[in-house]
Amino acid sequence: MKINKARKYVVDNLKYALNPSSIAVVGASRYPNKVGYKVIDGLKKWGYKGTIYPVNPRADNVYGLKAYKTVKDIPGEVDLVFIAVPAHLVKMVLEHSVEKKVKIVVIATSAFKEIGRGELQNKLTQYCRDHELPLIGPNLVGMGSPYLNFNCGFIPYLPVKGPVAMISQSGANLLAALGTSQMSHLGMSFFVGLGNKADVDFSEFIAYGGQDPNTKCLALYFEGLDSPDALISACQSVVPKKPVVVIKVGGSKIGVKAAFAHTASENEGLNDAYFDEIFAKAGAIRATTWQEFLDISLALGMQPPLKSDRVVMITNGGGSGLLSCDHFERSGMPMHELKEISVGLSGKIQAYMPMFGSPLNPVDIAGTASPVHYKGAFMQAFCDPNVDGVYGSICPTAVTDVEAVVDYAIEIYDKYKHLGKPFVMECQGGQECHDAIMKLRDHGIPAYPTPEQAVNAIVALRKYAKIKANFSK
Amino acid sequence: MKINKARKYVVDNLKYALNPSSIAVVGASRYPNKVGYKVIDGLKKWGYKGTIYPVNPRADNVYGLKAYKTVKDIPGEVDLVFIAVPAHLVKMVLEHSVEKKVKIVVIATSAFKEIGRGELQNKLTQYCRDHELPLIGPNLVGMGSPYLNFNCGFIPYLPVKGPVAMISQSGANLLAALGTSQMSHLGMSFFVGLGNKADVDFSEFIAYGGQDPNTKCLALYFEGLDSPDALISACQSVVPKKPVVVIKVGGSKIGVKAAFAHTASENEGLNDAYFDEIFAKAGAIRATTWQEFLDISLALGMQPPLKSDRVVMITNGGGSGLLSCDHFERSGMPMHELKEISVGLSGKIQAYMPMFGSPLNPVDIAGTASPVHYKGAFMQAFCDPNVDGVYGSICPTAVTDVEAVVDYAIEIYDKYKHLGKPFVMECQGGQECHDAIMKLRDHGIPAYPTPEQAVNAIVALRKYAKIKANFSK
Repeated sequence: MKINKARKYVVDNLKYALNPSSIAVVGASRYPNKVGYKVIDGLKKWGYKGTIYPVNPRADNVYGLKAYKTVKDIPGEVDLVFIAVPAHLVKMVLEHSVEKKVKIVVIATSAFKEIGRGELQNKLTQYCRDHELPLIGPNLVGMGSPYLNFNCGFIPYLPVKGPVAMISQSGANLLAALGTSQMSHLGMSFFVGLGNKADVDFSEFIAYGGQDPNTKCLALYFEGLDSPDALISACQSVVPKKPVVVIKVGGSKIGVKAAFAHTASENEGLNDAYFDEIFAKAGAIRATTWQEFLDISLALGMQPPLKSDRVVMITNGGGSGLLSCDHFERSGMPMHELKEISVGLSGKIQAYMPMFGSPLNPVDIAGTASPVHYKGAFMQAFCDPNVDGVYGSICPTAVTDVEAVVDYAIEIYDKYKHLGKPFVMECQGGQECHDAIMKLRDHGIPAYPTPEQAVNAIVALRKYAKIKANFSK
Repeated sequence: MKINKARKYVVDNLKYALNPSSIAVVGASRYPNKVGYKVIDGLKKWGYKGTIYPVNPRADNVYGLKAYKTVKDIPGEVDLVFIAVPAHLVKMVLEHSVEKKVKIVVIATSAFKEIGRGELQNKLTQYCRDHELPLIGPNLVGMGSPYLNFNCGFIPYLPVKGPVAMISQSGANLLAALGTSQMSHLGMSFFVGLGNKADVDFSEFIAYGGQDPNTKCLALYFEGLDSPDALISACQSVVPKKPVVVIKVGGSKIGVKAAFAHTASENEGLNDAYFDEIFAKAGAIRATTWQEFLDISLALGMQPPLKSDRVVMITNGGGSGLLSCDHFERSGMPMHELKEISVGLSGKIQAYMPMFGSPLNPVDIAGTASPVHYKGAFMQAFCDPNVDGVYGSICPTAVTDVEAVVDYAIEIYDKYKHLGKPFVMECQGGQECHDAIMKLRDHGIPAYPTPEQAVNAIVALRKYAKIKANFSK
C-alpha cells in the first residue's frame, strides 16, 4: 500500500528484522521438510544467539525448544514475529502481536493479493499501520545478514560478508543471489525479501541501508512500485553517500501479468520509460540483466567512483582487449588512446611488453607477459596522475602464472588505493581464473570472468561519479 | 590474403592440422618455460600418439626425443610443421617444408603484419600459395581436439568433448573458451586459432567443420574479414545442416586500431552494419557478448532447431520467470500465455502446483515445488503437441531437491527427445546449481546460471530454425 515517504517508526524498527534479540516463529513445525521447521533450523544452524520461541498450538516442543500456543503466551519480550501459518490465521497472529507489543512482524505466508485476495491483504496492512506495527511481506522468503550470523526464513545458506545490501521482491532471485554469493564471493551486508511489500516499502529499507555501516551499496530488485515519491526521496538522501542499483522486471506484455501473479505487483499501463524516469530522478543506476545487476552492485560496493573516463586497460590478451573496447563504446563510454590520456605513459608501459605487444589502449602486454610485466604496467598506470581508473585482464596462456599476477595485482592495489582510483579485473578461462576472481574479490577488487562484465562494472562506477556529483549539490 | 572461395587443396589438407600422423616442431626448446618446449609438452601430456620430430640446430635431444637440424633432415614423412622460431627465420622453414612435401604448416610466431610487416607476411603467404602448401597463422596459439587427444600449441588444457567447433582469431579468447569448457562443460569437437589468417581462411575451416562428424555447431570469432564472398558461400553450404555462430570485434573507434595491432585485421571504414549484412547473407547467427557467443553455441550444438515460439517455461521461481519473459520480449520473441498455446494444458499443469502457483507462462510451480511436481509439469509440456520447446528453471529454496529435479529432467528429456523439441534449463544459485548445470550439459541439455542466458539460447534455436528453412530451399 502506498506511502508518501519512508516512515520513521518503520525505519527505526527495521533493526529488529535483521538483529532481533528474540523471535517468535508462528507455525513452527516438528517436521523437517516444513517451512516452519526450516526457519528454526536456519536460525540455529547459522548461529543465531538470541531467544527463539516456537509457536504451535499442537506441540509442547519444537526443535528441542519449548513451544507456545500463541504469541501472547510467550513469557519474555518478542522483537520479531515470523509468521508461516495459512493466510486465514494471519489476522489473529497480528492481533496477538499488537497486544504483545512486538517490534516488527514478517509474513512469509503466500496466497494473498497475488491470487486475488487484495482486500484481505489491505485489511491486514491497515490494521498494522493503525497500530504502528511494521509488517514485512507477505509472500516472502526471509532475511538475514552474514555479519550477524542471522538466517531467518527458508534460506539454504548465508552469503559471504561484503558490501552489498540486497532488497528483493522475488524470493527465488534473492536465494539465487545468495548462492552466487557463496560460490562467487559476491559479498553482502544484509538481505531481505519484500514479497508483496504490503506495508514496509523499498524506501524504508533504503533509509535503513543508508545508515547500516556494513552496507556500501544498495541493490534493489523490483517487480512493482507502489510509492515512487517515497522511493525517489529515500534514494536522493542516500546516493550522495552510497550508490543504489536497481533492476525492474514485469515490463513485458506477459510480464505484467506474471508480476501480478507473483508478488501482486501492478504494472498495467506503465512502460519502461516511466520507470527509467523515476530511477533517474532517484539517482539510481538501472541494470538490465540479472548478471549485470549482480556485477555492478559488487563493483559499486567495493570501489570508489570513477572521476573521468580516462581508464587504462592492461591485458595479455588482445581479444579480451577488443571485446572490452567494443563494449565500452557500445555502453556510451569509448576508451581513449594512451597518448590522449597521458603523454609519455605509452613509453613507460612499453618497458613491460615485447615488441609485438601494443601500447595503444587496451595495452596488450602479450600472451607471453610475466607477473613482473603486469606489475610494472599496473604500477605505471596507477601512478600516472592523468589516469583515473585501471582495468586489468588476465587470459591464461601456457606461460601465464595467474596466481603470481593476482598477488602482484593485490600488492599494487594495496599500495595505491589511497589514490582513490577504481581498479577492476577480468580473468577469462577455467578453474584458475575462478580461483583468481575469488581471491581478488576477497581483497576488495571486483573481478569478473568475461570482459563485458568488467566493462559494465567500470561504466557503472563512472555513472555513479556523475550521480554523486549531481545529488551532492 | 583474400580468396574468392574455400580452396579444395586447403580444405582437403586441414585434416593434417587436426589429426596429423607426424609433426615437426621447429624451434623446439629444451627450456620448459619456452613456447617451443610447451608445444611438445602439450602434445605428449595430452596423449598424442603420432611421431614428433623436434627441430633445433643446436640440440641433439629435446624432451627425450632425437632432434633434427632442419625439417629436411627428418627421415620420415611429415604431415604438419609447427613453426615457433623468430619471424626472420620463417621463410627458410617454409622452403624446407615445400621441399619435404609436408601437408600443412602452422606459424605460431608473432611480429608480422600486426606490427607493420605486412609485406613480409604477404610474401610468405604467396610463396605457400604458389606451392599449394596451406599455411595457418601466423601469430596464433595452436589447435587441438579432445576427441583425438590432440593439443598442439601453447595451450594449457584441452576442452571437454562436445558439439562445438571453435575457430578463433584471438588466441587469448580461444584459451579462455577452453578454460570455460573444462570448468563449465562447454563441449567442443575441435578448436583452432587463426591469428593473422594470412592464408588459411575462416571459410576453409567452415567447410572442414561441415564435414567433421563430431561437430554439430561452428563458433567463429572474427577480428577482421578479408574474404567475405568465401565466407558467405562456405556458410551457405553448411547452415542447412549445421548452425554457424559468429562474434565480430574491432567495430569500435579504438577497436579498429586494436584489431590491427592484434591480428593485423583491417576494419577501417567498415561499420557494424556491413558485417551484419554479410552474416545475414551467410546465414550465421551473430552474438554480441562473449558470454552470449559461448552460450548460444552450446545450445545450437546440443539441441534441434525450435519450430515455433510456442515455448513453455516451468519454474519454481516467479522472479526467474519474470526476468525470462522480459528478456524474451526484449529479444523480439515474446512469450505466449499457456491458454494461447494449448487449450487444456493449463489445467493439466495445475495438478503439479499449489494454489499460489501460476499457470500463466512462465508456469510458476512455486518455491515449494517437489521433484514430482517438476516431473509432471515437464511431462505435460513435452507431450502437448502444441508445445514446440520446453524451458525448465530451478531456483533452489530451502526445500528444493535440486539433484532429484535434475535427474527427472534428464529422464523426461531422454524419454521425449525423439519428438525433436528443444529443452533448455536454467539453474540459478550456488554450488548445487553449478553441479546441476554440469550434469545437464553432460547429458546434452544446455543449462545456464541466469535466466537471460537461457533465453538467449532459446532465441538462437528459433533463429536457426528460420535460417535452416530459408537456406534449405
